[in-house]
Formats: sequence, C-alpha cells, structure tokens
Amino acid sequence: MIYAFGEVMMRLEAPQYQKLPQASSLLVSYSGTGVNVLSGLSHFGHETAMITKLPNNSLGAAAKSYLQSLGIQTGQSIYGGNTLGLYFLERGFGGRTSTVTYTDRSQSSFCTSQLDEFDLDSLDAASLIHFCGISLAVSAHTRKLTLAVARKAKERGLTISFDCNYRPKLWTNGYAEAQPVYEEMLRLADICFITEADAKLILGFKTTYLHKKEQIGDLLPRVAQTFHIQLIAGTIRAVKSVSEQTLIGFLVKDGSVTYSHMHHLHVLDRIGGGDGFASGVLHGLQTKMPPEEWIEFATSAGVLAHTTVGDSPVSTITDVLRLKQTLDLER
Amino acid sequence: MIYAFGEVMMRLEAPQYQKLPQASSLLVSYSGTGVNVLSGLSHFGHETAMITKLPNNSLGAAAKSYLQSLGIQTGQSIYGGNTLGLYFLERGFGGRTSTVTYTDRSQSSFCTSQLDEFDLDSLDAASLIHFCGISLAVSAHTRKLTLAVARKAKERGLTISFDCNYRPKLWTNGYAEAQPVYEEMLRLADICFITEADAKLILGFKTTYLHKKEQIGDLLPRVAQTFHIQLIAGTIRAVKSVSEQTLIGFLVKDGSVTYSHMHHLHVLDRIGGGDGFASGVLHGLQTKMPPEEWIEFATSAGVLAHTTVGDSPVSTITDVLRLKQTLDLER
Amino acid sequence: MIYAFGEVMMRLEAPQYQKLPQASSLLVSYSGTGVNVLSGLSHFGHETAMITKLPNNSLGAAAKSYLQSLGIQTGQSIYGGNTLGLYFLERGFGGRTSTVTYTDRSQSSFCTSQLDEFDLDSLDAASLIHFCGISLAVSAHTRKLTLAVARKAKERGLTISFDCNYRPKLWTNGYAEAQPVYEEMLRLADICFITEADAKLILGFKTTYLHKKEQIGDLLPRVAQTFHIQLIAGTIRAVKSVSEQTLIGFLVKDGSVTYSHMHHLHVLDRIGGGDGFASGVLHGLQTKMPPEEWIEFATSAGVLAHTTVGDSPVSTITDVLRLKQTLDLER
Amino acid sequence: MIYAFGEVMMRLEAPQYQKLPQASSLLVSYSGTGVNVLSGLSHFGHETAMITKLPNNSLGAAAKSYLQSLGIQTGQSIYGGNTLGLYFLERGFGGRTSTVTYTDRSQSSFCTSQLDEFDLDSLDAASLIHFCGISLAVSAHTRKLTLAVARKAKERGLTISFDCNYRPKLWTNGYAEAQPVYEEMLRLADICFITEADAKLILGFKTTYLHKKEQIGDLLPRVAQTFHIQLIAGTIRAVKSVSEQTLIGFLVKDGSVTYSHMHHLHVLDRIGGGDGFASGVLHGLQTKMPPEEWIEFATSAGVLAHTTVGDSPVSTITDVLRLKQTLDLER
Amino acid sequence: MIYAFGEVMMRLEAPQYQKLPQASSLLVSYSGTGVNVLSGLSHFGHETAMITKLPNNSLGAAAKSYLQSLGIQTGQSIYGGNTLGLYFLERGFGGRTSTVTYTDRSQSSFCTSQLDEFDLDSLDAASLIHFCGISLAVSAHTRKLTLAVARKAKERGLTISFDCNYRPKLWTNGYAEAQPVYEEMLRLADICFITEADAKLILGFKTTYLHKKEQIGDLLPRVAQTFHIQLIAGTIRAVKSVSEQTLIGFLVKDGSVTYSHMHHLHVLDRIGGGDGFASGVLHGLQTKMPPEEWIEFATSAGVLAHTTVGDSPVSTITDVLRLKQTLDLER
Amino acid sequence: MIYAFGEVMMRLEAPQYQKLPQASSLLVSYSGTGVNVLSGLSHFGHETAMITKLPNNSLGAAAKSYLQSLGIQTGQSIYGGNTLGLYFLERGFGGRTSTVTYTDRSQSSFCTSQLDEFDLDSLDAASLIHFCGISLAVSAHTRKLTLAVARKAKERGLTISFDCNYRPKLWTNGYAEAQPVYEEMLRLADICFITEADAKLILGFKTTYLHKKEQIGDLLPRVAQTFHIQLIAGTIRAVKSVSEQTLIGFLVKDGSVTYSHMHHLHVLDRIGGGDGFASGVLHGLQTKMPPEEWIEFATSAGVLAHTTVGDSPVSTITDVLRLKQTLDLER
Repeated sequence: MIYAFGEVMMRLEAPQYQKLPQASSLLVSYSGTGVNVLSGLSHFGHETAMITKLPNNSLGAAAKSYLQSLGIQTGQSIYGGNTLGLYFLERGFGGRTSTVTYTDRSQSSFCTSQLDEFDLDSLDAASLIHFCGISLAVSAHTRKLTLAVARKAKERGLTISFDCNYRPKLWTNGYAEAQPVYEEMLRLADICFITEADAKLILGFKTTYLHKKEQIGDLLPRVAQTFHIQLIAGTIRAVKSVSEQTLIGFLVKDGSVTYSHMHHLHVLDRIGGGDGFASGVLHGLQTKMPPEEWIEFATSAGVLAHTTVGDSPVSTITDVLRLKQTLDLER
Repeated sequence: MIYAFGEVMMRLEAPQYQKLPQASSLLVSYSGTGVNVLSGLSHFGHETAMITKLPNNSLGAAAKSYLQSLGIQTGQSIYGGNTLGLYFLERGFGGRTSTVTYTDRSQSSFCTSQLDEFDLDSLDAASLIHFCGISLAVSAHTRKLTLAVARKAKERGLTISFDCNYRPKLWTNGYAEAQPVYEEMLRLADICFITEADAKLILGFKTTYLHKKEQIGDLLPRVAQTFHIQLIAGTIRAVKSVSEQTLIGFLVKDGSVTYSHMHHLHVLDRIGGGDGFASGVLHGLQTKMPPEEWIEFATSAGVLAHTTVGDSPVSTITDVLRLKQTLDLER
Repeated sequence: MIYAFGEVMMRLEAPQYQKLPQASSLLVSYSGTGVNVLSGLSHFGHETAMITKLPNNSLGAAAKSYLQSLGIQTGQSIYGGNTLGLYFLERGFGGRTSTVTYTDRSQSSFCTSQLDEFDLDSLDAASLIHFCGISLAVSAHTRKLTLAVARKAKERGLTISFDCNYRPKLWTNGYAEAQPVYEEMLRLADICFITEADAKLILGFKTTYLHKKEQIGDLLPRVAQTFHIQLIAGTIRAVKSVSEQTLIGFLVKDGSVTYSHMHHLHVLDRIGGGDGFASGVLHGLQTKMPPEEWIEFATSAGVLAHTTVGDSPVSTITDVLRLKQTLDLER
Repeated sequence: MIYAFGEVMMRLEAPQYQKLPQASSLLVSYSGTGVNVLSGLSHFGHETAMITKLPNNSLGAAAKSYLQSLGIQTGQSIYGGNTLGLYFLERGFGGRTSTVTYTDRSQSSFCTSQLDEFDLDSLDAASLIHFCGISLAVSAHTRKLTLAVARKAKERGLTISFDCNYRPKLWTNGYAEAQPVYEEMLRLADICFITEADAKLILGFKTTYLHKKEQIGDLLPRVAQTFHIQLIAGTIRAVKSVSEQTLIGFLVKDGSVTYSHMHHLHVLDRIGGGDGFASGVLHGLQTKMPPEEWIEFATSAGVLAHTTVGDSPVSTITDVLRLKQTLDLER
Repeated sequence: MIYAFGEVMMRLEAPQYQKLPQASSLLVSYSGTGVNVLSGLSHFGHETAMITKLPNNSLGAAAKSYLQSLGIQTGQSIYGGNTLGLYFLERGFGGRTSTVTYTDRSQSSFCTSQLDEFDLDSLDAASLIHFCGISLAVSAHTRKLTLAVARKAKERGLTISFDCNYRPKLWTNGYAEAQPVYEEMLRLADICFITEADAKLILGFKTTYLHKKEQIGDLLPRVAQTFHIQLIAGTIRAVKSVSEQTLIGFLVKDGSVTYSHMHHLHVLDRIGGGDGFASGVLHGLQTKMPPEEWIEFATSAGVLAHTTVGDSPVSTITDVLRLKQTLDLER
Repeated sequence: MIYAFGEVMMRLEAPQYQKLPQASSLLVSYSGTGVNVLSGLSHFGHETAMITKLPNNSLGAAAKSYLQSLGIQTGQSIYGGNTLGLYFLERGFGGRTSTVTYTDRSQSSFCTSQLDEFDLDSLDAASLIHFCGISLAVSAHTRKLTLAVARKAKERGLTISFDCNYRPKLWTNGYAEAQPVYEEMLRLADICFITEADAKLILGFKTTYLHKKEQIGDLLPRVAQTFHIQLIAGTIRAVKSVSEQTLIGFLVKDGSVTYSHMHHLHVLDRIGGGDGFASGVLHGLQTKMPPEEWIEFATSAGVLAHTTVGDSPVSTITDVLRLKQTLDLER
C-alpha cells in the first residue's frame, strides 16, 4: 500500500481555451500532487490511499468520489470543516500562456487540520508515503503538520518520498526561509524529486560547471550523500511553446546518473506532468526495474501525463509501453 | 442611479439536477442580493451600479464582466485581493430539496475590505442605495463596514433600502446578537423588506393575532412607526414542494397594508426570487406607482424571477406585464 | 408519395429555459409546417418530399441534411440564393410564456423564388400535397406563388391539403385582407385544417350557438359544403399553463363531426403540435381508417408531438398506439 | 462487508428527453441491480464490493472506475473478454413513456463467465450477498452460475438477499419455466424482495382476497414460511403518469406486515428506484432498526432514488432523514 | 445509383481527448466502410443506397436517420433483430495513439442476416456496388454472405468495387486463411483498393524491388492482370505522429501507375480517411476524369476526410477543389 | 471616451470543427469590427461605446448584454426594427479552410437606420470614433449613412479612425466603384489602417518596387500625405496553413515606417485578429507610446487576438506584456 499526504484541491477549468470571463461553465475535477502521484500508481496496479482532511459536506463527498474513481482509497482520510482549496485554470494557446488563479486556502479543511486528528496507526499499513514541498509552503501550520507526519512515518519505518516542488510565490522570504525547512525534510527523505537548480538555489550548493547535465552530475550525487537520500529523480524540460516542449528524465543512484532519451512533447494538459513522472519512478522502485528501463518507463509515464485530460495521470502500463514501442519504431 | 452595497459571489451549480459528486462541469454565474436587485432594476430600465470590492485577477474580471452583462455598472467598485466568496448549488427535484453549500469567505476581497478604500464621494451620484442583512451577519468586520457605509449614504441624502434577509446559521448567538444590529440598521432605513416573523423574532415585537395577515396588519405598521420607515414590503410564501409554491406580496405604507392576489408558482430557480420582488418594489417606488398596481407589479416580478435561470432577475417590464395579462385572462 | 410546399426555416433555441441574452449556444434545427407534417408522415411509413427553395450554401446543405434525417426527400427542392428564414425560441416555464422572435425573411431563398424555377412536372409523382396559411401571409409574392402551385397541383389531380394557420401579425390589414385569399385557397382544397373561430373571423360565417362544440357542429359542415371540402379537421385546446393543457380532436366529414376523447397534455415543446395532429389526420386518410379510430389516432399523434423535442413529429405508429393503450389502461 | 453478484451494464441515455435518432451524444454510466443496491449501501456508510466479470479493456476500466466512484470496491471482481452488456434509455415525458432498448448480451464477459474463474474464498469477507432475478433469466448459463454462487455463499454462512425482479421478456416459456428456478433460489434466500403478484404468478400461491394489502397480508407470510425466509420486503406503486406516482413500502417479518405511509413521487429517473428501496431495507437490517422506522427509512430511500440522476442511488442518511423531516413538517 | 453492402456500426467517441473512464457522455454516430464511401459519393452529388440489415428498434431507427442525413438511401436495407455492432473511440494526442475498442458483434442484425432476406432484384437499380474486406473477416457467416451477394451483383451486371481492408485481428489463422477468400473476391472485382503490402502478404506475390513505388509499379499491374481488375487504387501513408502524416495517392490502370503529389496531413479524425479516398476514386470513375486530375481529386478527397469530424466524408466537390486551389497557391 | 460606428452582427459558430450540417448546436456571440476594436480598448482600460442600431427585441437585448459584458457601453445606441445581421462560421482544420457564410442583411436594424435617428450630440462625449470599410460596402444606404456620421464627427472635432477592410464580394463593380468612396473617407480620416496592396488596388497608387516592405515604405507615406492622414498602421501576414502564420506590424508616421519583429502565430480563432491589432494601435495613440514600443504592443495585441476564443479581443495590458516578455526570453 502506498500513501500520499497533502491537500486535495478542486480544479475549475474554463473549457475550450476560454478565459474565465468567457466561460459559462467550468470543468471540475479534484487534484493535488499527492492525488496525482497516487492516481498514476493506482493505474499501474498498486494499492494507494490518500491521507488528508476533506470537508464534511458535498464538496468533500465529491472529492472523495473523484479520488475513488481514480482508484485511490479514501477510508484513511478524515472529514470535517466546510472548505476545500481550489484553483482556476485557463488553458493557453500558441503564444498565450496558461494561467492558474489561486484563491486563499488558509481556511480549508486540510490547512486547518491538526496532527492529532489523524489516525497515525493507520500509517503501518503502508510501505511508502509521498510528500510535496507545497505542503511545506502554504502556511506555518501546514509546514509543521507535514514535518510531523513525515517524522511519524519515518519512525514507523515507511519509505519517505518527497517532491521539492518549490513555489516562489508561497515563500514570502524566499530561499532563506525555505532552506532550513527543506533541509529538515530532506534528512527524512529516502527518495527525492529535485533538480540541479533546486540544489543551488534552495540548498545553496555550489558548482563550477555551466551545462545542465554537468551540474546534475556534480550536484545531485552530493545532495544525495549529504542528506542520505537513496534515490534522486528529476527531469530536464525545454519549452518551445505552450504545446511544444522536450523532456529528459534522470535518476541519481549510487553516485551515478542515468538519463532517458529525449521526448518531443505535444502538450494537452501541462499540470500534473511532473507527478506522472514521479509515479513512474515510484512504480520502477516498487517493481525493482533496472535503471535504464526504469528511467525510460518513468519518463514515458511523465510524457503521457501531458497528453491526457486533467492533472491526474490515467495511463496504464500498457499505455506506457505502447508509447515506448511507438518511439522505438520511429527512430 | 441606483446603487447596492454588498458582496458579489460566484455561484457554481451542478447542472441537470445532478448532485455535486456526479457533476463533471459546473454552471458558473455571479450573484449576491445586491447584484440581483440591481439586475432586476437594470432590466426595468434604471441605471444601476454595484459598490463592492472584487479580486484583482481573473475571478474579479469574470465577475465584473458578468455584472456588466446584466446592465450593472462596475466602475464604482474597487479591485484588490485574490479571493471571491463562492457557493455551490445542487438543485432539488420532487421531495429532494435543493442544497446550497457555502465555504469560508472570511478572506474574500469584499470581506477584508476597509471603509477608506471606497470612494464615498461617488455615493452622490445615486438617489437610492440597497443593503442586505447578510452583510450584517457574515462577520463583525462586514457588519461594521456595512453600517458605516449606510450612515455615510444617509448623511449624503440617499434613500436607504434594506432587506432583512435574516440567516440563522450566520448569527452564532441568534436573535439576541442580531437585534441591536438590525435596530441600528432599521433606524437608517427608508424602505425595508421584512416579514411579521422577523418583527417578532428579531425585533421582539408582540402580537395577540394568530393568522399571518392579521399579524402583518398589526405588527408591520408598528415597525414602520418605531423606526421611521416609509415603506415596508414583503411576501407570504407557502411551499407545497420544491417546484410548487404560492406567493402573495404586500406593501405597508402610511399604516395600511396592500396585498397582491395569490400567485401559483412553478419554480425553476428559487434563489433570487425575493430579490426579484424587491426590484419590483423599488421600480414601483421610482416610477410612483399607485399601491395596488405597485404590489401587483412587484409580486409578478418576484414570480418571474422564480421562472428564469440564475439568481439574478432578467425580466423586462414587458415580461412582467405579459405575466399579469396572462393571469387576467385566466381568471 | 406525399408532398408539402412551403418555407423551411432554421430554428435557433436557447437551451435549458434560458432567455436569449443568457445563452452562449443555441440548439439548431430546421422546421416549417410542411416539414413537420411530412416528418410525421415519414415516421408513419409514408414516402414524402418537400417542395421548397433552399439556399445554395452551407445553410441549404444543413437544412437538406436535417430534412433527410427526418426521412423527407429533398431531390424535388431547388437550390439558390444565400438566405434561410430563421426564428429564435425561448422556452417559457410556469407562468412565463415561451417567446418566438422572427426576423425579416423577405429576402430568403424561398420568399424570393419564382414559379418557373420549380419543376412542376415532378408534382405528378405525388398523390397529395400540403399547404399552409403562413405561405399566403408572408408576402404578396409568396401568396401568389403558393396559390399558383396549388392550382397547378389541382390541375394535375393531386389531393390538396390546407392548414389555415392564420397568423394575425402577418396580415397587416387583418381579416379583410385575408378573407378573399383564404376563400380562393379553400376552393382548391380537398382537406382543410380549420376551427370554428377561423370560420367566423376569417370567412365571416355566423352562428347563434355559444358553446365551442355547438359552433363546430353548426359552422364547419357549412364551410365544407360552401367550398366543396371533403374533410375538415381541427382541435379544441384549453390552456392551463405553459406545460398543462387539454386537447380534443375532431373530424368533419359528410356533414357530421367525430370527436376524440380529451387528452391531458404535459407540454415539452409546443411548436409543431398542430402539425403532429395534421400528420395523423393525413395518415388516417391514406390508410382509410374509420372515423373514430382515425380521430383518436390523429389526436394521439398530436399529443405526442407536444412531448418530443423539436418542432417536427418523430413518433412512430407504435408510439402512437402505445399512448392510446396507456390511456385505455388508465381509464 | 456487503457483496452483490450480477452483471454490470453500460447505460447509454439520450439526453434532454431526446429520442435516440435525435441524439448526437449519449450520457454514459454503469449500472445493474447489484451495483445500485451496493451504491445505496455505500452512501449509507457500508463497505461494499461487486462480484462480477468485467471486460479486460477500456470498457472494463471505465465500469470499474465508475463503481469505485460510487464507493463500491472492485478488487473482488475478475477481468477478461471484451464485451459489456449495454442498454439505451430514452426518457419519456408526459404521456410518452420511457423506453429501454436492450441489445444481445449473451456474449458479455459476465454472461460467458465460469464459476471456477471466481475466487470463492473471497466470499468469506462478506456477511451478506445480494442477488437479482434477472441473473436467473438472462440465459441458462447465468442461471446455473447464479444458483451455484448462491449455494456456495450459503454454505459459507453469508446472509442471502434476493430481489425477484421478474422480467417477462426474458422467460421464453413464462411462469412455468420460472417457477422451479425461483423456488430453488427462494430456498436459499434469507431476505427476499417480492410482491403479492409474484407470489401468485410465479410461485402459484392462491388467495381469495381482492385488495392489494389484503393479498400481501395473506400471501407473503405464507411465502416466508414456505421458503424459510426471515424477511420479505416490497412496495406498492400506483402510476398516474411518467412523472407522478405514489409509493408505499412494506416489510413482512415474523408473520406480520408493517407499511410505510404513502409517498407522492415526482420522478426524475425511474430506473433503480426499487434498488434504492432495497438498499434502505438492507441498511435497516444491518443497523437493526425497529420495523416502523425501518420501513419509513427504506421507503424514503426508494423515493429519493427516483429524484436523483442515474440508476444508482446516491443519497446519504442525512438526505433520507431530511426527506422524512420535510414530510413530517408537511403533514 | 451506387450501392454498398456491409455492416453499419455505432461509433461511440469519448469527447475532448478523454479516455473512456473519464467520459460522462459519448458522441454517437453511425459508420462503416460502406457508409463512409457512400457518404463521400452522396456529397459529390451521386444517388446512393446502403444494402444492410439494421435492428428493428430505436437503434435501427437512429442508424437509418443518420445515414439519411448523409444523403444515403435506406429503403433498400432490411430491418430485424435488436443488435447493432458498435465500437468505442478514444482519440489520441501527441505521442498517445488513438485506441478503438470493439465488442463482440457476432449477434448483430447484419452478422446474423441471411441471403434470402435481401431483395436481390433491387440490385438492378444500381450500376456499381462497393464491398469491404472486413465483411469477409468478421465471421464465416458474413464471409459467405458477402461473397454470395457479390456473385449475384456480378451476375446482374453491376461493377464490383472492393476495398481489401485487411484486419489482422479478425483473421485467426492469418494470411493463409485470408488468401483463398481474397482471391475469390478479387476475381469478382472490377475495381480494387489494395497496396503493394497486401499483394505480398495476402496474395503471395513476390518482388525483388525494395522501394515502395517500385514495388507498386511491379506488383499491382500484375495483380490487376491476374484477377482481371480494371482499376487498382491506393495510398502511401507516412506517419510522423498522431496528427502529422503525409499521403500520396495512386491509380493503376492499363498497366501504368499515376501518382498524386504528396499531401501534408493535419489529422483531426483518422477513421474513414481511406474511405474518403475511395469515394474520390469512384467519383472520378463515374465522371470519367483523366488519370492525373482523377488521382489528385481522389487524394484531396482523402486528405479532407482526415480534417472533418466523424468517420464519414462530408466534403463537397467545391471543398475538394478549394483544397487543390489552396495547394496550388502555396507551391 | 472612444466610439465606434457600425453594424453589430450575430456570429453563429459550428462547434468543435464541425461543418454546419453536422452541428446540433451553434455557439453564439455578437461581433463586428467596431465591437472588436472597442472590446480590445475596453480591456486596456478605456471607456468605450458603440454607436449602432439594434433590434428592439430579444436579439437586440442579447447583443446589448454581450457588448456590455465586453465593457462596451450601449446607452448611446438606438433600438428599433427586428433584424440583426448574422453570419455562420465553420472553423477549418489543417488544409481545410474556415468558411464564413453570410446571409442577406439589407433589412437589418442597422442597415435600415436613418441618420436622424441617431443622437449626434452624444458624439461630443468622445475624443475618437472608429469606422470600418465594410460599412461603406454593404449598401448605398449604409455608405451614405457612414460618410454622413463621419462628417458630423469630424465637424465636432473627434479624431477619425478608419480601417479600410476592403471586401471584394461586397463591391459589385470592384475597385472602380470603391475608389471615390474610399477617397472621400480617407480625406476625413486622421488614422487609417491600410496596406500597400490597398494603396495600389483601391487608390491606384503606383510603385516600381517589388518587395512588400519597399512598397510600404514608398506608397504609404504618400497616401498619408495625399489624404492628410497622421498615422497609418497595418500588418504583413504570411499564411502557411489555417493555424500557422507569421505577422509583422508597422506604423507610418511623419513619413517613416516602424516595424515590429516577426511573430509566429498559432491561430485559434482568425476573425478579429486585425481588430486586435487596431485596438493596440489606438491604445498606443491614447497613451502616447514611442513608435517602437507602440508597434510591438499593437502587434502583440493582434497576435493574442488570434489565440483567444471569439472575434472580440479580450486580452489585458498584462496579457500583452506577458506575451512580449515570453518572446524576449525566447530570443
């Protein structure tokens, strides 16, 4: 059983490339990095459950039903309060970038939840639990809560997976405020999703190399060593336009880096692409794939997550292998 | 020019009688009692403007555009913050009642606005300004703000219109908490939308009569006298089911009560029905209708507001007169 | 083969009981009394074709495809010009009546068509052709055209069916202008859809009876005799509200009147209800039903046409008989 | 844990009261009596799981996701084949009845499944399992399969619930063919949903009483005694029109009958109404309600299932109690 | 009059690039290679009719109405049974390929139809009849039926058109099973849609050439000669991604090959692209186009069929010529 | 305050790349070059109002509401008649071009309006008024009306902006008929949107240069001088396909030309692209931008107008600057 801890949000999307003032209806789904990673894993055949707090009303019922439809169990979550965080998505086109509008979520059921509301004993049912850097950033309260849950999980012997997901807007005092928090979290983590830029900017690592791959090879093994992290994974993304991008995945393990080949992305829905990659990495971990196959699988999973509707990955293993096969044929 | 002061909210409705967990899209509109009353008046040909604070992002732009589409001016509103209050509507059917789910709105742009942000001089452009009891209830902050704006408007010679709209859930300490606040507001009001039940429960008036119309005749002229209110208006509603109801309107003026005939309502969209009636009352006031014609017009306006899509009334004078005519023919 | 002659119009409907200013999309279909009557007959298994002129562009192609989907042949129509008449429908609810908004159609392909454009020889393929009073009213041009086609059809031995469909708005000078035109058409007609009110108001017949059924029994056999009409049919409708009405059908043949029993209508889509009845009458004629069965069938066909989406009847014989059966069970 | 055994079908509904030839899109959901009963129970807070066979392709994945969204576990089902049974729904209006069109489902994954494909040991996890008479009727194969599963479940000590659901079209040789099959099933059943008409027609019981309630009181206790059934439940339905009906529920236990009061139904979606009642009965059983409260709860659950979208009940205990409360207020 | 013989299927498409488990509604249309080829021809102005068997229920009525809307006559088809074959389409995006899910169709009205149910005399009304290789593959029954109809048509002097459309999944024993069947069909055919790969794999022709165009030039004239086929046509497709492809058309006539120029395809809807090409080829045949103009027209028709919604081509001659003109301008 | 004078039209669009015969609903919006230019300006923060005549019915109310939603005031327009011009849009895909179908609009409220119906005194409230060449072309009546309004506006001291927008189909006698009309309008204009091709073809200017930029540099300063125009603006567009194009903007002022850099366009909605550019030019004029910044802003505004839904630009200044910034980053 794989868990994720974090917030579930309502995603409200203006359909058909409309801007919000043009929309008379909004597409609704329920999302969050934890939800997305678990959805990916659930579609790969793993048992998964979300640890969160949902409102005790129609909104909570709707979020719960949606998570279940993705194959994520919700019996381990708690229910109370009346507010769900939400965000509005206006998909861009051509040179017009997509915009995401957040509203205040400090009063959401999750953001006002307390450690002692959660049934920590239920953690024993899982072998791995995933966390996200956004939970560290939303408020001092969620930061403390997240670190506490991670510590409890570590104590109970779960593998700790952590996606840095640094969001500049959420850290009022920037990297200086974030560094000690991230360091504390990284010391708990067994698996970490991080890039060379994070290593430099958040963690203050230095390098004399100029090129991305060189910096990755120099910095990330040192990050792994410093914080005793077994596995680091990440992607290199190049953006040509809203819909045309390239993506390379990498794994850092035992001091060496393994890269996937480069994918040419046609982007249908950008959000959750990184979570698709993360779910592929965790699937490879659970099934003990060899590094080359592992990073190809994970990157293909990430690529497919850009081509399906919604934040949450919904591709099966068959889908991922079919993508790989298509690529092989095309070379 | 007619103003309303209050909050603008996003309404998110599960379409086609779905419950929220069943909905993959939500109908979006922008509403509020002030918006609804002004929409009604704008469709009757009056110049109107909303005095509120909207977020300075896509949500604010969407709300602004929607208000403008109803014929309500938005140049007098202010913009800032990032959060709009919102509510979710699941329309009922048959014995299943409609449900409205509110989330926390204490951090909305309106609910965190300050008196000195508003350009009070712009009040001089209006002859009448409408307030709603919900603004008195949402928080101590909005209560203070609303009373302050009402006082400033009174000072500048505007006619003050006030709809009691008592919402039990919003007054933690019930009628005891509400009474002094309502009394303060009623002393400012020139026109008031109130029922005999409000007079008894909120204001503590006593009556020995048992029947509704007797109580109205006994209590409301005394309310008018006590608080120096020129005009009181309200409705008597009987609910047979979600979709079948009856409605009678009444006006209290110069100590006497004028009733409309009884309408048999087929309800398409219940929310905003009372605001439709209020807009009819204010239209009659502005155009100096004789009481019988006035209350028939206002009640017809209220009835039609139950038969159109959305909270905000969109019927024209022609529509109201056509309803009246149909009724005359059918008698 | 059964023909109808007349205009095809685009129907643009605001969905979900919206008013036109609320609608961001409109439901589109193609209609006309001729289309509707033929659609009904086609669904009863008859071969049908529309004689009209459609624009020679996407609009014409769309109308043609729609008629074909109803089972109406379009090879006998002609194509040219660029304009299709259209109307906008806002469906009412409860006390709010439906409204139909027409725009100018004087320049439509049909309204500017010339007699010699039509291949009159193709009339020989049909045994019956249906006309509508609206074609007599739209303009002096269409009036002349319609009468000319009717005369040609009569000469070629076709049965002439005519639905009076008097539209007050279209006759600038009222009944005085209409009377000679209708009289000319009635002299050509073998079957006529007309009511006792038409007989009095358009044709100037007098009666001393007060009740509807008495007037029908007095006036319509005299109309039949005067104009040598073999069959007159019509309905008695009572309107309780937009959605609740009653309907009785009648046939006048050989001087005597046969009535159907009274139907309680729940109205989904009012337009084309009369055409559904007409198609039932013509089906009974073609299949030589005995009068009682005939008028029951025709009235049931009319009733069903109020319960299906769109102007054009789409019920099969099975559907009509199932309605009758349900009624039998319920008595 | 509560199980149901049976087929999952795709429901394809022509939206907005359209007939199938008018529809350019169809609403899709996944249903079946088992699914519906479990959905009701899941919304009342019970753990539930479906025992069925789903295709091993996108259709199976879609059905699985849908069941999960209703809170029904799918890990106990098996996957294989490529075909899902399906049916088409055209909702009626007024006098026009709804029509359901079935296509051949003999080749569906469920209908071709074999007893030994199912993991019968997993039955031990459940305390109750629900069956439906349709599974007995679809084919000789499913009949045999269903009886075999019921026998195995009985052996393992599960409570057997059985809904007769006699479908005349599916029994080629009528009651004579059905009687021995139903008798065999009833001997296995602990709880049975059956009416006095079933007792007479399928089982051949005789009564001299004429009125429904008398027949229920005479026949159903004898059915219970004959087949050693602890609990019999059913409803009395009177149909005024497609949308207006009345419903009374009853329980037969220990030889005596308890009736609910009569509900006036406004029907939004007829299908699954009986399953809503059944889920209420089973909830009352699990929570040991006293008979009067029990039958009122179950009947309210059935009533609400007529007012929500889709076959599967989605009302919570709160919803059921709110309906009851509304009724109490209205008396 | 041009006929096609074969199955009509319901196409159910998940809208907006959704996967099936994400879709709450499905787009519905009716298709089949015969339908598609006839739709193309009908839009080019030819009279067409489908020879098939459709269910005698709402599904059959819907398919019939849809075919008629495309301009295809349905009076020559027969009606009975209750099942229509269907398939589900999930459109791909970027690297994610489209997937088509078929369910069992062995029990469909067409697949269970008998030769003697069809009115073979009606064949005399047509000058050409089109067949498809899928009908040879679905089952032994449809294979026999299709060959029998082709033989009857040949006897009555119709031109036989045949599209190989080899589907590996449908031939359990592969090419060995297919070869004698295809050979029998090719001996009946006057016009054949086939590629050099089909010649090698199905028919066992050998060539020493390596490049596609060389193989076409070597093999297909020999195929034509061997089976006495007057005209062979086909396309060379290169696939860069789901949406970007190239297409070249070719005609083999009197021993020589004529190629179109190469089109760069932007694919909206891949299915039916080949049928669009086939309809263009048959139009060129009927209108006796010179080979160069012919193959350019046919290839343009094929290209356009990839850019319109649905399987069935809906482009007019004007549309095809406009594409050609645009291309000329762009060179 | 900025005005535009001209026609408002209803735009009816077949959704999802459908052709008109495939569409069962049409997306509805209200448009026109004046509307589009004002919408752009309103989104940049300017007060704007449309001077037109709208029908006095639901259509007029809908158009009015739509304009208001874009931030355009409608109080200066007049109301009467019953007909609104309209056009149908079928969006192309790949090689299939978009098609626009116009119907006769000679009887529209605007096209039959008279000069003396308009309140010319209201012109004094504006500093600038925009006209479009289409108004000069639709009919002799609108031509006369447009020139008369322009003359009146000039007399009252407004800046006259004029977009040539030559439409070949609307000038029966071609350039010869257009030249004197355009010359008359250009003599009134202060700002003109025109290209080198217009200068040659409509106005008969000669040049010996061959390349576009050379011709612009040669011809347009002479046009400016000849007609005393202060500012000329236009774009150079290269079309690779329906969705891929390039765009360069230019300004001609004081005899010299300033170009923007070249934009690579991904086109979502082509119509109104030029109006987006015009609104950017007028915004630069009102805010006195330096030429280089001005033309970059205006061209970016034009580019964005191709990437948003609908004819009318809805981008804010922030949106335009974000596009510019993205471009800067990408260089």
